[in-house]
This record gives sequence, structure tokens and C-alpha cells, in this order.
Amino acid sequence: MTAPTAWPDRPSTPLTAEEAARIHQWWRAANYLSVGQIYLLDNPLLRQPLTEDHVKPRLLGHWGTTPGLTFLYAHMNRAIRQRGLNAFYVTGPGHGGPGLVASTYLEGTYTETYPGITRDEAGLQRLFKQFSFPGGIPSHVSPEVPGSLHEGGELGYALSHAYGAVFDNPDQLAFTVVGDGEAETGPLATAWHSNKFLNPHTDGVVLPVLHLNGYKIANPTVLARIPEDELAALMTGYGHTPLFFTAGFDDEDPISIHQRFAAVLDEALDMIARFKADAAVRAEQGQDPTAAEGSVPQAHRPAWPMIVFRTPKGWTGPAEVDGRQTEGHWRSHQVPLASARDTPEHLRVLEDWLRSYRPEELFDADGALLPEIAATAPEGTARMSANPVTNGGAVLQELELPDFRRYAVPVEERGTEVVEPTRRMGAWLRDVVAANLQNFRVFGPDETASNRLQDVYEVTPKQWMGEYHPNDAGEPLGPSGRVMEVLSEHQCQGWLEGYLLTGRHGLMSSYEAFIHIVDSMFNQHAKWLKVTNGIEWRRPLASLTYLLSSHVWRQDHNGFSHQDPGFIDHVVNKKAEIIRVYLPPDANTLLSTMDHCLRSRQYVNVVVAGKQPTPTWLSMEEAVAHCTRGIGTWEWAGTVRDGELPDVVLACAGDVPTVEVLAAATLLERELPGLRVRVVNVVDLMRLQDSGEHPHGMDRDQFRALFPEGTPVVFAYHGYPWLIHRLVYRNDTGSDFHVRGYREEGTTTTPFDMLMRNDLDRYHLVMDVIDHVPGLRARHAGLRQRMEDKRLEARAHAYAHGVDLPEVAGWQWSDNQDEADAGAAAARMGDTGGDND
Amino acid sequence: MTAPTAWPDRPSTPLTAEEAARIHQWWRAANYLSVGQIYLLDNPLLRQPLTEDHVKPRLLGHWGTTPGLTFLYAHMNRAIRQRGLNAFYVTGPGHGGPGLVASTYLEGTYTETYPGITRDEAGLQRLFKQFSFPGGIPSHVSPEVPGSLHEGGELGYALSHAYGAVFDNPDQLAFTVVGDGEAETGPLATAWHSNKFLNPHTDGVVLPVLHLNGYKIANPTVLARIPEDELAALMTGYGHTPLFFTAGFDDEDPISIHQRFAAVLDEALDMIARFKADAAVRAEQGQDPTAAEGSVPQAHRPAWPMIVFRTPKGWTGPAEVDGRQTEGHWRSHQVPLASARDTPEHLRVLEDWLRSYRPEELFDADGALLPEIAATAPEGTARMSANPVTNGGAVLQELELPDFRRYAVPVEERGTEVVEPTRRMGAWLRDVVAANLQNFRVFGPDETASNRLQDVYEVTPKQWMGEYHPNDAGEPLGPSGRVMEVLSEHQCQGWLEGYLLTGRHGLMSSYEAFIHIVDSMFNQHAKWLKVTNGIEWRRPLASLTYLLSSHVWRQDHNGFSHQDPGFIDHVVNKKAEIIRVYLPPDANTLLSTMDHCLRSRQYVNVVVAGKQPTPTWLSMEEAVAHCTRGIGTWEWAGTVRDGELPDVVLACAGDVPTVEVLAAATLLERELPGLRVRVVNVVDLMRLQDSGEHPHGMDRDQFRALFPEGTPVVFAYHGYPWLIHRLVYRNDTGSDFHVRGYREEGTTTTPFDMLMRNDLDRYHLVMDVIDHVPGLRARHAGLRQRMEDKRLEARAHAYAHGVDLPEVAGWQWSDNQDEADAGAAAARMGDTGGDND
Repeated sequence: MTAPTAWPDRPSTPLTAEEAARIHQWWRAANYLSVGQIYLLDNPLLRQPLTEDHVKPRLLGHWGTTPGLTFLYAHMNRAIRQRGLNAFYVTGPGHGGPGLVASTYLEGTYTETYPGITRDEAGLQRLFKQFSFPGGIPSHVSPEVPGSLHEGGELGYALSHAYGAVFDNPDQLAFTVVGDGEAETGPLATAWHSNKFLNPHTDGVVLPVLHLNGYKIANPTVLARIPEDELAALMTGYGHTPLFFTAGFDDEDPISIHQRFAAVLDEALDMIARFKADAAVRAEQGQDPTAAEGSVPQAHRPAWPMIVFRTPKGWTGPAEVDGRQTEGHWRSHQVPLASARDTPEHLRVLEDWLRSYRPEELFDADGALLPEIAATAPEGTARMSANPVTNGGAVLQELELPDFRRYAVPVEERGTEVVEPTRRMGAWLRDVVAANLQNFRVFGPDETASNRLQDVYEVTPKQWMGEYHPNDAGEPLGPSGRVMEVLSEHQCQGWLEGYLLTGRHGLMSSYEAFIHIVDSMFNQHAKWLKVTNGIEWRRPLASLTYLLSSHVWRQDHNGFSHQDPGFIDHVVNKKAEIIRVYLPPDANTLLSTMDHCLRSRQYVNVVVAGKQPTPTWLSMEEAVAHCTRGIGTWEWAGTVRDGELPDVVLACAGDVPTVEVLAAATLLERELPGLRVRVVNVVDLMRLQDSGEHPHGMDRDQFRALFPEGTPVVFAYHGYPWLIHRLVYRNDTGSDFHVRGYREEGTTTTPFDMLMRNDLDRYHLVMDVIDHVPGLRARHAGLRQRMEDKRLEARAHAYAHGVDLPEVAGWQWSDNQDEADAGAAAARMGDTGGDND
Repeated sequence: MTAPTAWPDRPSTPLTAEEAARIHQWWRAANYLSVGQIYLLDNPLLRQPLTEDHVKPRLLGHWGTTPGLTFLYAHMNRAIRQRGLNAFYVTGPGHGGPGLVASTYLEGTYTETYPGITRDEAGLQRLFKQFSFPGGIPSHVSPEVPGSLHEGGELGYALSHAYGAVFDNPDQLAFTVVGDGEAETGPLATAWHSNKFLNPHTDGVVLPVLHLNGYKIANPTVLARIPEDELAALMTGYGHTPLFFTAGFDDEDPISIHQRFAAVLDEALDMIARFKADAAVRAEQGQDPTAAEGSVPQAHRPAWPMIVFRTPKGWTGPAEVDGRQTEGHWRSHQVPLASARDTPEHLRVLEDWLRSYRPEELFDADGALLPEIAATAPEGTARMSANPVTNGGAVLQELELPDFRRYAVPVEERGTEVVEPTRRMGAWLRDVVAANLQNFRVFGPDETASNRLQDVYEVTPKQWMGEYHPNDAGEPLGPSGRVMEVLSEHQCQGWLEGYLLTGRHGLMSSYEAFIHIVDSMFNQHAKWLKVTNGIEWRRPLASLTYLLSSHVWRQDHNGFSHQDPGFIDHVVNKKAEIIRVYLPPDANTLLSTMDHCLRSRQYVNVVVAGKQPTPTWLSMEEAVAHCTRGIGTWEWAGTVRDGELPDVVLACAGDVPTVEVLAAATLLERELPGLRVRVVNVVDLMRLQDSGEHPHGMDRDQFRALFPEGTPVVFAYHGYPWLIHRLVYRNDTGSDFHVRGYREEGTTTTPFDMLMRNDLDRYHLVMDVIDHVPGLRARHAGLRQRMEDKRLEARAHAYAHGVDLPEVAGWQWSDNQDEADAGAAAARMGDTGGDND
């Protein structure tokens, strides 16, 4: 922790009288417009006495947080102008939408973006009416709001988004308001530690403002109700220098309030400027720490300022409504005058409230903001609402992607090249990182190496601004790393989202089971993408791509708690135009898939791929063709030619199911040589849907060409089997799909036992074929019994020897290996361990 | 924050020489058994030289955290004996399973629980072999481990579980180890604030130990790499008194280490004793704060101690392996000697390591722990592994449930009694709370009142140990409340889980969309329930019941970010014997459902019910019958008698879809009087599955009795429509289901527009009937067009007037109301606002 050194003397009244007056006028205007949005249908400048007809019939929105947001906005504008800052505004309390809409309207950005909302009385009327009104705009700081990169509808991610946005944006300042409600969430509580991952020279700065307005929906907040020394300790413990500001609880003159806050803001910004300057000097002197062998440099991590901003909730609103305290109380949270249209008394309070901002002093005869007040705002892209990074797609630079084909596993004989797919991909990823050192990062909860992506450390360390110890020598830790690891999926996801939202690229890798931790964050990002697809001025972002490894079938160390393939099920509920799910069966298909994902825009890509040694089935050329189709027949694995009708289709999606299906096909070829078997592999899961449901879907004819009507399909799927039924239900009118997958049966056991517990093993697939191809069961009861015996035997062997048998020794699988062979095969598979969590 | 007062002088060497020696022997024994579990198949006491045959072929498990866990366990045992504590052990780093299995074996509990694991050499061999071995036990502190109530497989919830476990258990001490990896997670980072919700007199105490062993899987940890003053500030800021202890980084004599730690532990326990005694005195004097009108008492919140416990990772393990530092490094995380079976050098290191604990001094000739060492442990239920609360089902007391029928909405004419279902349920919930003040709590993220459950405040306040302000007068805040509100779904869920796991009862209410925040926590709890169903000595727990209100169809204030009904989809992936999902269509069915849920055991119940005014369709008698069946025909709503074949089935699940289906049925009756319509309502969603898939499922005959083969079914569903297809796919072989639901189309708009955007509105349901009943489309193109016109008209009206039209004015719905009627209907519906978030 770096103690703040002496700061320059700062005037306690940093504003000229004129500046202070203008800021106050701006604030009044922004509050007026906010209240207007919540309540008014018409009469936007109160040129007539307010009547019930001017009031919206349904009053929706949130007043409580709004005046704090507008106050801070006004002050930042002054600072931006005076200091030439490059700043944007992250609104943690996103339901304070009216405040941000008002501020961007006052700045002119809103009208530039939506020319219909003119800067006159008619425009004001439209501005007011559209808010939270059918056919209008949402109540939050949604993607429709210029300058927003954070809707704030679900609380918890303001700081993570802000940090993600300033990584590799050294000149950007993310002015980030954290509500005291949001501060209670887990993701926000850990996000303060993001400063241990921020390079003071090559990254920008986050200035957090903890807005203690004291209340949530109906409760006081925790951080507003602990002693100030405790709160100061907390923020110091988070690595910040806290600056405290309180206003609005007495009758202090507003000008004095503005002077005091300007002084606090100046102090914070001076501190930031000093830290940035220090970092620049250090960088010039080569003093940035590196964890070079033998030396133990220290990362220079400044104690960045943060502001504790304590104001009444619903500040400047009605002190009382119906005799009950409203300003400074949770009753201000939403709409303090719920009956303004129906109750004359409420209508009067509303009018008094609106008039208290004295709109006649703020807007000219046409309804335009007076120019001297408008001049409070910065100009052009210096306006926070016009900062180009907040429309990331517009500043996005293409990735330089090395040709993934160069990393191909050569396949001379199918299935004999056994590699760890993610490790192979890691070599390519290393070169992606090296080629894009300014705009690509890899995020993951302490699992980059565990997921076999450690080749990236050849070109970049992990970003680390914590202390360094002697035994870090040789470790891939450094102050400018491209790999972001913290044991919080929330943080990783939030940072990556912020990074993507500001026009950069990235990859998130995670254990499959624990990606559920960010289910709700994924939801919100998917919603952002869906909405922005409909907003022309929002340019497409790089996709959010997940690599889910350490998957359900190989949790040898960890067992049941680490076994859950359900993220796919969660994801497919979101809009089809946003969602892509890939299950590449080997290294070459993984490379091809990942290249595709990193080139894509406006999607969430979910790629599930194992890190355990896996046979390579397709040459790179075949892999590209297969991935392009997304689904296809592997003629070489079956016994019928394309176009011939099979007796049964063996379908597979996922690396482990593919191995089992190929082994089952081999068994069938030997045991039932006359049986016509087709093998279909699915890389792109969405291909299974109907073309009306998903743009990658197949129409009925395409579907039937692969899965002929009346032909039983035995489908081995990586995840919960029901999903396949859900995906094919429109095309599969014959209900001839029999799906095996993970049925939530697991523990710490051998991979083979895992398959067996879920009836996904090769022997059971053969039994399924016998059961579902008409006529087989009666004729081949003996074979069926033999299969049952074989699987019990295989499990017993694995149990007794603690090894996984029969091992996957290439697709030329044989089940008459003796133990020695099997042991050799197992050894050939390399690492017998599972994941490293 | 209460500053700690002066403490009694404590000896710096609190242990007698004998005690210190015994603790060290115990620790050596526990570590020896831990290493043995990870590595050994046989030769458990090293009576022969170690050979490769003694070593497991697959080495699985986690050594790094283990020695710290066993050290702490040993010291707590001494303290429990000396102080007569009632304590249990929460293992945040749950993958340190070997350490806890070892400790419980040494205490004897393990053998009492699993008699086959005897306290002799043969038992040791079985103890070792079974660990992380097929057919054996999982590697984590899973439910199989006596004394565990927290598996720790997914990190983040140790503190929340611990607090939940001690609420209303005033004599319990939850000794809770938090790994420095886990400490980086969001849920854990906010869980420290749980102390603002703990009553020092009527609740127990959590003693957190932050175990800084410095590393995660492959990285240093954040909290181990910030300066100690910063960490001290952080813990002080969290409201704790931090005590620091460091050991293992030099050659300090182990006895000295034990003396020092014993002193620190004594200091913490003395502090706790003092705080508890203070609280008792205050309680006796009636000094506990209450937020009575006009007075502003303060909650007396002690600065509870916590211990920062800094040791090397893999403490006492091999200093180096292959020339690379291992003890005190992340390389100790998992299995430090991965090739112990194959590499003679590793085998030698392993043997040296095992022998370094000198097992011959710890176990007698038979292999039993020496009695003088065993005496270190407490006896009977004083053993942490035998604490009855850790097997909550065994101490569970039945809830006193008032007869829910008394809260019934009287139904003289169907659909005319319009009430807010959750508010009605709230009256019953109030009386449930009042009747069970010691073992029932209501949890929710600041939404109890928003979800209309505020009647509970008539009998209990919200638990609050933060500061009190003057304007809290009249607020339902108090130091002994039964309602737990904090703006963290993680905290609410974790507390409730801890509360249930220790044999109590509760309810969690949440906004529907944001329950996804705890998707992964639900996963882990469902897994716990599934596994414990198979462990005879684990007794059934009260179910975890969610009330999801403020649902997707009524997010009038908040829009798209608050619209997500997918938790149901997530839940149904877990084992059928654990999962129950209910969609009661009105207040009476909600009451009946909730009564059922609170009586149930070992389930996760998901109940989705709106808080907006909703017609009551069934009398209580009918409601009970309907809920008992879970699905049924509403003959009164259709045009055919039971048993007669319909032309179409209109099915519905969920309160809003039920209204639309009934309105559609009315339209059909008027417009197509000859059409035979059956209306089916689903309360228990799992009834739709096949009886082979879910115990509540229907067989084919039952299914076909409701949904006759070949008869089109137009199904209006609350959530994502695909789920219905997934549920019915086994029974519905005819693919005649046409499902409408939420298709992820939403924004801030009127309720009617929400329905229309998703084609779930009454008019569109009629259009669906026309489209799917053979022959109708050709004959009734005009009617279909009229329906399309009607919906556009209805939307336009709502748009223009900002009100929701046509309103739901009882099931005797009519669409020829003029605007005045409609306005009156809207007014009759009461509150036109949406939720309060």
C-alpha cells in the first residue's frame, strides 16, 4: 500500500461564484427533467398550471437515486472541462435512468442521437412522455442511453465493468457510482479488489463513488449504517484512499455544497493525476516490476482515491408526503407521489416540487437550455455521453488472428494422434495474444494453466499488482500481463464484459460446472446484445466467448460438486440470434471453432472442450469442413455410404460422447456386421434446431437427410439429455430419438464409471441400438447380455486398479486387450490425473 | 463498532508441556492419515519399506490446504475440552477432505459412523484406500463426512453457511475456515458483513479463520499479497477484531508454534465469551434495542474476533520436489508427488515425508491411536464431528402450521374476487412466523414487502444490528427479527441453507429474474440433498422453498433486465426426486401449495406466484383438490364435460397464462359456440413428465386422458415455452402441443404489450386454436383477422393511455367494454404500479 504523499494545497472553494452558480443551475435542470420524465405527459415547462391531464396515468421509475447521479454528473462536467479529462460515467444504480437521460439531453448528445427529441418545448414533451412509457424507452440506463455501457438493472457489476473498460485504455477515467444497495452484493464486494490488477501506467483509472443515500427498496443499507471509521477502514482495506463528503441533511446553502464537493473531487482527481504521473516516470525509468528470475521487485500499486458520497435519498424531493418523511427515506426509492394524477393534494406537491427547480430560469422561451448553463458541459467527444469507448463497436479494431491451420494435429490415421485439445488450442492462443497485445486478454478464475492454456505464458505473464515474494521468481506474474486470473467468476466475467463493451476482444475460460456462478451475468449481457442489435448507432461488439473445460466427464479429483453441464441449457433460453454453442470433438475442430468464435460479433459463444488426452479424428481440412457444416455424417465411422438408408443413426455431441459412439460403432461392426450404421457428429449444437427457431437450424428436409424418418437415433450427448429432445422437437416428429447424457449421477470416480453411471458408455450404446432397432432385441439377447457383462467387467477392473479401463486407445478400439495392453494404452494417454482444482 | 475493552491477562504459553506435546502428536497423526489417504493403497503404518505397490495408481486429492485444517482442528479440540464449547467446524476449503476425514477418524466418530473403518491397521488400510477411489468416498468434505454441513466444493459460501447455522443456536460456535482462494469470491467477500445481522444474545457465534496459505491452484492470492495493515483495515472494516498468527516459515520449534496459536485462540475465545456475557447482561436488563416509535436505541454489535492464520501451503510436506520449491508454494495445491508410483526418487520422498510424522510413536501395535493422544479430543457430542446440529434432520422440530384454509379467499362467483396472491399468503406467513419464533425465518434480498409479504411485520421486525437512526421510528427493524434482508441473493441463500442444514425451516422470496444469481448455489444444495438421500444416518432436512414473485410478466417499472423465467429450466435438470415446481394460478392455490412446501422434506420447491391483483378461480376446497392432483381439467371453464372428447385443449400453467386462457375460452365460446374446448390447468409442473422420469409424473394413460391423442393442445405457459416440450416429450408422441410462453421479448411496457410481444395474449391464443384445429382456419379467416385487429387495438389503447387494457376483470371477461368500463376495471384492480425494485 502506498501512502498518499503530500498533496498540493487546494482552495476550499475551488469554484468561481459563476461556476458554482452554473453547476447548481445544471443540477436543477437535470433534476427537473428527471422528475418530468417520471411524472409528466405534457406541459413540460409548466407554462400552465399543472393539471391531472398533464400527469402520466401509470407512474413508473425511480426517483431516489437520481438527484445524486445528476449532482455527480454536473460536477464531473466541470472537472472534465478544466482538466481535459477523458471520462465516462458508469451508473451502478441503473434504475436512475431519468437522471442519465436528463444529463445526456442537457449535453445535447441525446438530441444528436435521437433527432426527434429536440431541444425545445416539443422535444421536452416527447422526452418526458417516452420515459417508461409503452413504445418509449426503458426506465434504466439501458443501451438506448448514449454513453451507457452498463445498464445496471441487475446490481453488482458496476466496478467490474468499469475496470474492464479501462484496462488498456490508459487515458480513460471511469467515473463509477456504486449505490449502497449494490455495495451489499457479493460481486461488488469483491470487485473493489480489482485495483490489484490495474496497471497504473498502461491502464486507465476507476474513480469509485460510493453513494450512501442510506436506503434500498425498503431498508437501510449496511454501509450507511456502520460507523464512519469502520467504513474508512473497509475502504482502506480495499486498497483505496477514501474521501468523505456529506451533504443535504441540513439547510446548507447549495453553493456551499457545490464548493465543498468540487474540492473533494479535485482532491481525488489531483491524487489520480499524481499517481498517473508517478507511474509514467517509473515506466520511463524502467521501474515497473517484473518477476525476473532472482529479483524480487515490487509492484507499485497506488492507493487510488474513492469518494464516500453521503446524501439523502430522494434529495431535493418532497420532504414529506401524506405526513410521512420522504426525502431522506426509503419511501423516495421509486415514485414518491404515487397518486399525483388522482389526488389533488399530491398534484399540488408535485407541482411545488417541479417548480422548486425554477425551470423558467433554466430554459429559454423555446424550451432550450440557456446557453450559459449549457456551457457547463464539455464539448464533442469530451462529453461523457459521447465518449467513443462507450459505443465499443465503433472503436473496435480487428484482431490479428494467426492461421489456426498451422497448429493442426496431423492425422495420418484417424484417432491415433492423442492430444489434449485445449493445450493444442493454447499454442494458437499464445500467438493470438502475442499478435494483439493491446486489445486482447484472457480471463479465468485461476484455471488458465489447469485448462491447459499455459503456453500463453511464453508471451505474457498474469497481470499482478499485489506484492511479490522471492519464490515468485520464474512465475508468470507481472504488472502488464494479458492473463487475468482471480478466484471470482463474477470478476472475470465483469472485467471481460467491460473490455468487450469498450471495443476490445477476449476469452473466458472456466470449469464447466462453475460457470453457473455467472448465469445471471450472462443473462444480462445477452439481453444487452439483443437490445443493441436493434439500435442502429450501437456498433457490433466482439462476441463473448467461453471456453468451458474441466468438464463433467473428467472431474476425477473433485467429483459431484464439479459435475454440471447445464450452462448450455441456460444459454439456449436466450435469443437465437445471440447464442452459439459448440462441442468440438477433437483438437482440430476446437481450433477451427475458436478461430470462428474470435472473429464473430454480437454473440455469446459457448465452447465446451476437454483438456484430457483425446484422439484426433479429423484432419484440419476435414475439421474446417465439418465445423462449417456444424453437423455431419462421419461416413468413415459407420457402415453405410452417404445417401444409403441406415438401420440406426449413432449421433454424438461432445468429445467424450464421440469417443464412446465411435467405440460403439466398432463394436457393432464386429458383432452385428450386417447392421447399417450411420454416425453423425454435431459440433454446432444449434444445428439441431428447426431453421425457424435458430439461424443455424436445419429445415425438415436437411434434418431428415441426416436422421431419416422412422430410423432410430441413439444420441450420445455431453450434457443433460433432455436438451436434445427440446432442440429437435420441431423436426423430430417421429420421436425416434433416444438420448444418453449426464443424468446427474456422479461422484469422485473413474471416467469409465462416470459414463456407466449415466448409461453413456459404449456398451450401453450398443445395448440401446439392440433395444431400438426393430427386431434386434429378440435375436441378439445374448449379445446384449455380453455387453452388460463387459461394462460391469470394465468397471470392476477400473475399481480394482484405480485406472480408467478400457482406455481410449484411438478409435481403432478393441475390447479384447488384456490388462497389459490396457495399461500401456493408459500410459500412452499421458497424465492420468483429472483437473487441478 | 464496539472497541474491544481490556482483556484478562493471558499466559503467552497457555498450554502445559503435556498439552502442547499431545496437540502436536495429534496434528502429526492427522497429517499422516491425510497423506496416507492421498497416496497409499496398503502398508498403512509403514511397517514395511514403502514400495510402488503400496501406492495408488491414480493419485487424487488436495494436500495444500490440509495441514492447516488439521492444525486448527487439533487446537479447537483442546479449547472445546477446556471451555466446554459447543462447536462445529466449517471447512471453506472443502477439497481438504483428507484432513477432515483424518480428524473425525482420530476422534472415533468416523468408525462409529462407518463400523467397517476400524481403529486398527486393517481399518487404516480401508480408510486410505477408499479415499478418492472408485466405490469409495469423494475427495471433499462431502456429506459422507461426519460433522460436515458444508462440502466446500464450490467456493464462496463458508461464512454464509456458518452464520445461517448459528442463527437461533445461541450456544453454538461455528469455527469457520475461509481459504484465501475462497476469500476472493464475491459471495464470501460480502458474507463478512453477516455480523450486522447476528444477535449476540439469541444467536451463536462464528469465529472466522482466514487461512492465508498464500496460493490458489496456480497463483498467489490477493489477501496474502496485500500489506498486513491493509488486511487489518479490511477486517476492521468488516466489523471484526483481527488477530494475526503466522507460523511455518522458519525453523521455530513446533511446541512454540502450538503455544503461540493456543494463545491467539484463547484470546479470540475469551473475547467471544466476554461479548456473549455482555449480551446476556444487556438482555437481562432489557437493553436490547428496539425501534420503538420515538426512541432511537442502538444495536450493540460487538467487533467479533477473527483470526488471520498465515502458514505455508502444504505445510510439513516436502520442501522440494524435483528441485522445485513445494512446501509454501502453489505446487503443493494438489498432489505434490504425482509420480510416486513410477519414480523411485518420488517414492523415496513420499516415504520420508510419511515417516517424518513418526507414525510408530502415534499408533499402537494394532494400529490404534495411542489413548493419551486420543484423549486430546472431546467426548461424545462435544466432538465437532458429532455435533448434532451438523446432521440437522436429526434435530429438526416440526413447524407449527396454522390451517391455511382459514386464510382462504371466499369464492362465490369465480374470478370476481381479485386479490394479490402473495399478500394473502403473507397473512398466513405472518402466523407461521408467530407460531415458530425459534426455528423459522424468512429470507429475501430487500423484497419481502415488495413481494407483498409485509404482514409478517405485524409479528416480527427485520433483523438489524446496524446503526439506528431517528427516522427508523416505526420501521420494522429490530435486533431479533425473523426476517432477514440484505441485498445479496447469495447471502440470503447461504444463510437459509445453513439454517436448514442445522434442522430449521425457512422461506426465501426473490424476484424471479434475479434468483439466477444463485443458480450455482442451488446446484450445490440440490447435490447435497441427492447425496444425503443415499446416506442413511443423514436425516431429512426441511425443504428449501423459493417464492418467486415480481415475475416476468409484471416488470412494469423495470423492463427487460428484470424479465427472466428461466430458473425453472435450471432447476429441472437436477434429480427428479429432489425437485418440485409449482405455478399456483391464484391465492387459494398458492396457500395450499405453500402449506405443502413447508411441510415437505429434502426437496427444493420452486413456487412462482404473482403479487399483482389476480382473480381467484377456485374455492379453497377446490384449490386443495386441484393442488393435490397437481394438474386437472377445469370443466367449468370449457365447453365439454369430463370424459367427452374435445376439439382442442387449452392448457395453462402460471397465473398470467391462466387469465389469458380463460379469456380465450370465453372468446371461443362466444365466437365459435360449437367448438368443444377443454381447459386444463397445471399447478405442479412435474406432473407433465412421464412417470418414469419424475415421481409426480403421469403415465401415458393419465396423460392421454387429459390430452387425447390427435387433439391439438394450445398451451399457455409462464416461462420459456420449450420447457413444456421437453417435459412432455415422452408422453406426447403425437407432437400436437403448441406452446406459447416468454420468448425473451420484453421491455418497460404494459402487461398487455408484454403478452402480445410473446404471442401469449388471449387473442393470439384464439388464433392458435383457429390455426391448429383442423378445418377452422379456412372457415374462420374472418374471425382470425378480427382477433389480430383486437390485439392491435388493445395494445394501441394501452399505449395511448399508458394503462393496461383490456384489464382482467374477472373471468367473465368481455371484450366489448368501452373505454369507461375498461378504466373502471383497471381501477378495480387496485395498484397500477409494478414491482418496487
